[in-house]
Amino acid sequence: MPPEWDSASQQQPAPGPLMIIGGAEDKLRRRSVLKRFVEASGGPDARIAVIATASSLGPEIVEVYDALFRKLGAADVVSVRPESRDQAHDPSYVESLRDVTGIFMTGGNQLKLSAVVSGTPFGDAIHAARARGAVIAGTSAGASIQSSHMVAFGVGGATPKQRMTQVAAGLGLLTESVVDQHFDQRNRYGRLLMIVSQSPQLLGMGVDEDTAAVVTVEDDHEVMRVIGRGAVTIFDPSRIVTNAFEAKRSAPLLASGVVLHVLPEGSEFDLTTRSLVPSHQRVDEAEAHEIIEAGRDLRQLARDIAADDASPSVWRRRRNRRRHAAVHDELGDPPGDAAPPHTVDQEGDR
Amino acid sequence: MPPEWDSASQQQPAPGPLMIIGGAEDKLRRRSVLKRFVEASGGPDARIAVIATASSLGPEIVEVYDALFRKLGAADVVSVRPESRDQAHDPSYVESLRDVTGIFMTGGNQLKLSAVVSGTPFGDAIHAARARGAVIAGTSAGASIQSSHMVAFGVGGATPKQRMTQVAAGLGLLTESVVDQHFDQRNRYGRLLMIVSQSPQLLGMGVDEDTAAVVTVEDDHEVMRVIGRGAVTIFDPSRIVTNAFEAKRSAPLLASGVVLHVLPEGSEFDLTTRSLVPSHQRVDEAEAHEIIEAGRDLRQLARDIAADDASPSVWRRRRNRRRHAAVHDELGDPPGDAAPPHTVDQEGDR
Repeated sequence: MPPEWDSASQQQPAPGPLMIIGGAEDKLRRRSVLKRFVEASGGPDARIAVIATASSLGPEIVEVYDALFRKLGAADVVSVRPESRDQAHDPSYVESLRDVTGIFMTGGNQLKLSAVVSGTPFGDAIHAARARGAVIAGTSAGASIQSSHMVAFGVGGATPKQRMTQVAAGLGLLTESVVDQHFDQRNRYGRLLMIVSQSPQLLGMGVDEDTAAVVTVEDDHEVMRVIGRGAVTIFDPSRIVTNAFEAKRSAPLLASGVVLHVLPEGSEFDLTTRSLVPSHQRVDEAEAHEIIEAGRDLRQLARDIAADDASPSVWRRRRNRRRHAAVHDELGDPPGDAAPPHTVDQEGDR
Repeated sequence: MPPEWDSASQQQPAPGPLMIIGGAEDKLRRRSVLKRFVEASGGPDARIAVIATASSLGPEIVEVYDALFRKLGAADVVSVRPESRDQAHDPSYVESLRDVTGIFMTGGNQLKLSAVVSGTPFGDAIHAARARGAVIAGTSAGASIQSSHMVAFGVGGATPKQRMTQVAAGLGLLTESVVDQHFDQRNRYGRLLMIVSQSPQLLGMGVDEDTAAVVTVEDDHEVMRVIGRGAVTIFDPSRIVTNAFEAKRSAPLLASGVVLHVLPEGSEFDLTTRSLVPSHQRVDEAEAHEIIEAGRDLRQLARDIAADDASPSVWRRRRNRRRHAAVHDELGDPPGDAAPPHTVDQEGDR
C-alpha cells in the first residue's frame, strides 16, 4: 500500500500541536515563541484566528496580534471573540473556525474564557480544529484553559498550603493535567503542588514567561518540547505521600515523593511515560577542534619516527614550531623565531 | 552489663540535636521554635551561648535573645561573639563554649560567620559541644552555616539558572547537604535546585520562616523532624539528569528527575535513606465515636436476639428509642415520644 494513498484517504490526520505559552511572550525582539506559532500554522499559508475572550482589553489586544502575525508572515488573521455562551452557540462564530490553520487564545481571565466557551459548539470547534491538524496556542489564561483541570485563581508562594488555589474544568486539549503560567515570575510552585497533592492522577505543568510547551502526539504518546527563554516545570505526583485529604485550613501540606523536572529550551519530555527523552550529547567545538589537531599531530609523529627515529622531545619541539607558524599564518604575521624553543616546549606540555 | 554503667563510662554520648531555623522565628506569640530550643537545651538547666558574629547589629541582637531565652526558662545565657579569625583562635572564646548545653547562632551574613569561625578552634568547639550532647541551633545565616556546603548569596526565583547563586564551605554539622532559609518567603526554589544540579551528591534542604528542621542521630541515621508554621522542602537529586555542566551564562538549567518532599510540622524524614518516615494514621474523633456506638449497638442486638428473637426492624426501633432517650438525657429533656416510630426508623436506616 503506497503511503500517499494511505495518508490521503483512510488515515486520520495527526492532531495539531498545542502551544502552551507561559505569558509575556516576547513581542519585540527575538519573538521566538510567536515565530514558531506562525511557522507551525503554515507560515505564508497560515490562517489564524485570535480568540480574545479572556482579555479585558478592547480591540487593541487583537490589533497587536494581528499586526504581529502578519509581520511574521501569516496570510490571514481574524478576530473571533464570543463574549457570552449564547454567542458561543452561534453558528457564525463556530463557522469562523472552520478553515483556520492556527488558533491563538490571548491572556486575561481564564475563568471568563472557560465560562464562555467550555461545553459549547464553539469549544467543540476548537477541538475539531485541532483534530484536523490546526495549531492551538494560548498564552497565560489561554494556556491555562488547555488542560483538563484549570487553575481558576489563587495566590503565590513556594510552599503548598491548603486552599491556596481553586480548580475549575479546562478545555481538556491536554488530558489528565493541570497547567499553570507565569510560573517562575509569580512564584507558583506552591499552588501547583497543592493541586497535584489533592489530585495525584494529574501531571502538573508550570510554564515560565516567554516560554512554550509544544505538545505533539507521536505514536499515541504526548511529547512535549520546550522553546523560549525560561523553563517548563513538571510535577509528577504518581508516588506522592500527602496529607492533603486532612490538612486543616491554610496549613502547609505534606507532599513527599513528587518527581520534579525543570526543562529548559531544547528539552523533550514524554508526557505519557512521564520521562525525559534523552538528548544527543552536545559536542564542544573547542574540544572537537583539539582532538582533530591531536590526531593530525599523531599521524605526523608516526611519519617522523618512521623517517628518522625522532625522540618524543624532538617531536614536541617540531610540533610546537609548526603550531607557532600556523598561528602566525592566521594572524598574517611572518613566522618569527622570537620565543626560545624551551619556552615553547613548556607551553606544549601543559 | 547494667545500662547505667554502660552509659556513664564507656559509651559515647549521642551527638546533640541540630535545629536549622529558616529565619524570622516567632519571638512574640507562640514562640514554638525558640521554646523547643530552650527545652532541648535542658529547660531550667539550660546554659546557652548566643553567637551573633553574622549580625550587623550591635549588642541589642544579643539582648533580645538573652531576654527571650531567660523568659522561656533558661538558667544562663552568655554572648560569645568572635569578630575575627584571631579571636576565633583565642582560648578565652573557645573556653566559653566548654560547658554550654545549647548554642544559638543568629541571622545576618553567613559568609561573615563562616569567614570568622570555619576551620578555627572556635569552630571546632562548636563541633565538640555537639559531640557531648549540646543543641546547636541557628536561624537564617546561622542555619545556612550548619550544612557541609553553604549558600553564600544569590538571587531569588523559582526556575534554576546557571550562576544564580554561589556556594562556599559550611561548618559541616549536617553532612552531604546544603541548607537554604527564608525558603518560601524569598522564593529560593531555583537557587537550591541550581546547587543540587551542580552537586548531585548533596541533599538540598530549604527551610521556611518560623520553621525548624530538628536533626537527631538515631541508630546511625540522621532523622529530621519539622516544627513551626511553614515547611521544610527537600530536593533529592540522586537520579537527576542535568545539563548543569554545560549550560551557558544565566540559562535555565535542565534538572529532570529530582525527588521533592515538602514536609510540614509533624513530618519525620530519614535524611540517611532520603525517605519519609510513615506517620501513624490520625484518627478522626467523630468517626471513632461512631464506630464505638455501632459496636455497642451490635452487642445489644446480639443480646436482644438471644432474649426474645427480635427481628431487625424491631431492634432498629428499640435502638432509636434508646438513642432518642439518651439525647434528651444529655440535653436535660424528658425522653418524649413526640416523633412517630416510622420517622425514627427512617433516620436509623440512613
